[in-house]
Amino acid sequence: MTTYLITGSSRGLGLALASLLVAVPNVGKIFASARNESAGIKKLVSESNGLVEFVQLDVTSQDSVQAAASHVEKSLNGKGLDVLVNNAGLMPLLFDSINKMADLESTFQINVSGVHNTTSALLPLLKKGTLKKVINLTSTLGSIGMAQASAAIPTPAYKVAKAALNMLTVQYAQTFAAEDFTFVAVSPGWVKTDLGGDAADLTVEQSSNALLNVVLSVGMQDNGKFLNIKVPGWEDKYDGQCPPW
Amino acid sequence: MTTYLITGSSRGLGLALASLLVAVPNVGKIFASARNESAGIKKLVSESNGLVEFVQLDVTSQDSVQAAASHVEKSLNGKGLDVLVNNAGLMPLLFDSINKMADLESTFQINVSGVHNTTSALLPLLKKGTLKKVINLTSTLGSIGMAQASAAIPTPAYKVAKAALNMLTVQYAQTFAAEDFTFVAVSPGWVKTDLGGDAADLTVEQSSNALLNVVLSVGMQDNGKFLNIKVPGWEDKYDGQCPPW
Ligand SMILES: NC(=O)c1ccc[n+]([C@@H]2O[C@H](COP(=O)([O-])OP(=O)(O)OC[C@H]3O[C@@H](n4cnc5c(N)ncnc54)[C@H](OP(=O)(O)O)[C@@H]3O)[C@@H](O)[C@H]2O)c1
Ligand SMILES: NC(=O)c1ccc[n+]([C@@H]2O[C@H](COP(=O)([O-])OP(=O)(O)OC[C@H]3O[C@@H](n4cnc5c(N)ncnc54)[C@H](OP(=O)(O)O)[C@@H]3O)[C@@H](O)[C@H]2O)c1
Repeated sequence: MTTYLITGSSRGLGLALASLLVAVPNVGKIFASARNESAGIKKLVSESNGLVEFVQLDVTSQDSVQAAASHVEKSLNGKGLDVLVNNAGLMPLLFDSINKMADLESTFQINVSGVHNTTSALLPLLKKGTLKKVINLTSTLGSIGMAQASAAIPTPAYKVAKAALNMLTVQYAQTFAAEDFTFVAVSPGWVKTDLGGDAADLTVEQSSNALLNVVLSVGMQDNGKFLNIKVPGWEDKYDGQCPPW
Repeated sequence: MTTYLITGSSRGLGLALASLLVAVPNVGKIFASARNESAGIKKLVSESNGLVEFVQLDVTSQDSVQAAASHVEKSLNGKGLDVLVNNAGLMPLLFDSINKMADLESTFQINVSGVHNTTSALLPLLKKGTLKKVINLTSTLGSIGMAQASAAIPTPAYKVAKAALNMLTVQYAQTFAAEDFTFVAVSPGWVKTDLGGDAADLTVEQSSNALLNVVLSVGMQDNGKFLNIKVPGWEDKYDGQCPPW
């Protein structure tokens, strides 16, 4: 019975992924973590026959992360956590020149330190798990090699943070490769969430289904990779391949 | 008459570069900035016939950066600053597993926010300058594409920070390309400084001379590039080409 924890499950891709996991065979528990138990999480918990459990978790707070890890440990009752999805993220826009950027550190805290805080706190439970998968939600906006194509998108702090997250993912991948872990950085495409906006390419359903495929299929052979999702009908842009760093 | 400002000039590559610039034709002023006026800076100032001027600058403090910008503006007396070398940096080692890393944010502050703070504060003076060059000292340890080769070097926070700095450099390059700026990220090689240690490949003299060549030769055609230095006798490793991101 596989166990999952997803950060940032209040809405958007995190909530959608938690909902899809309910229907996956052999799922034992889905910890839908978020800063607050949103209406979406409440509904999911109540309809999930005990499969989904809410966990309070603010990824920027060490206290919150530690409390969440204790909660999960108790709930798992001696078993391990199989899959961690570091999904919580924030993309602030800057409608001014980059020299006016005032959110470089706060954006780093949520998108990078948040992943480090969560992963390190849950590592003992992940080591006890059978799958040992950590999926970090990154973005092709964090690809320096693709920066020219993203030049018009006004979110420099987020681009810096996701590039940093890619390097963090590789550092974790190297450290725990010998213990059979799989760490990957996955770009979910441009998606119609609060973060992505209405003009985005993909519906939440399209992206979260593609993301689910990644979560279920990645294994040790993918450790340390930067992966694009694969979406039927969008193979020119969302091809399941590795974007440049 | 060209004007320069270098951060982290108390010792190591910053001090060496400031010293080399004294002998370059047509240099009007070298601002050797540092947190404290070290013995090395004092000596250089006293021997430079007024060419080198010390500026107190802690890159992590907004107040210090603003005070330094005012100092430089007064000293330049209406003229612009031509070249900024963001050299200040810190590489903490971690003799433990990455999940124990406690210096991710402090390392980001010095190596990334420090560059942003300094560059944004000096931007008005750089716009008035004739060369408009900003040279950011990065590292091939910040290359995600080369991460496999660097796996054994125990400095994850620094690797994350320099990858982030590379993306920041590209963001600045894109923003100010139309105003004829040149922003580059340059790796100075592995150098025998306090940071690099005694086992390093290059002497401070070798690296700082190669760095000087980059500082003097880069132009708008290089805007947004990640550059390796070129060192005679070391062309297999320090080839003057662009490392992968
Ligand atoms: N949508 C896209 O086009 C797109 C593209 C590339 C990558 N991504 C990545 O995909 C992930 C999910 O994005 P999304 O589109 O689903 O965004 P979203 O709809 O805005 O949801 C973001 C989620 O992150 C949570 N969050 C923010 N700060 C948090 C914190 N300190 N602690 C815990 N949770 C926090 C939010 O919780 P609250 O409700 O409490 O604010 C929310 O649950 C992000 O990592 C994002 O960078 C998205
Ligand atoms: N040496 C190498 O092998 C190597 C390799 C790749 C990249 N680099 C990069 O090259 C640059 C210079 O390194 P180095 O080898 O010359 O190192 P170093 O000898 O250790 O000198 C570092 C300099 O940075 C200054 N600094 C640190 N924190 C600062 C702050 N908050 N504000 C202002 N200055 C600060 C130090 O000043 P204090 O004296 O006040 O501490 C010192 O002047 C760094 O960016 C480094 O990452 C070096």
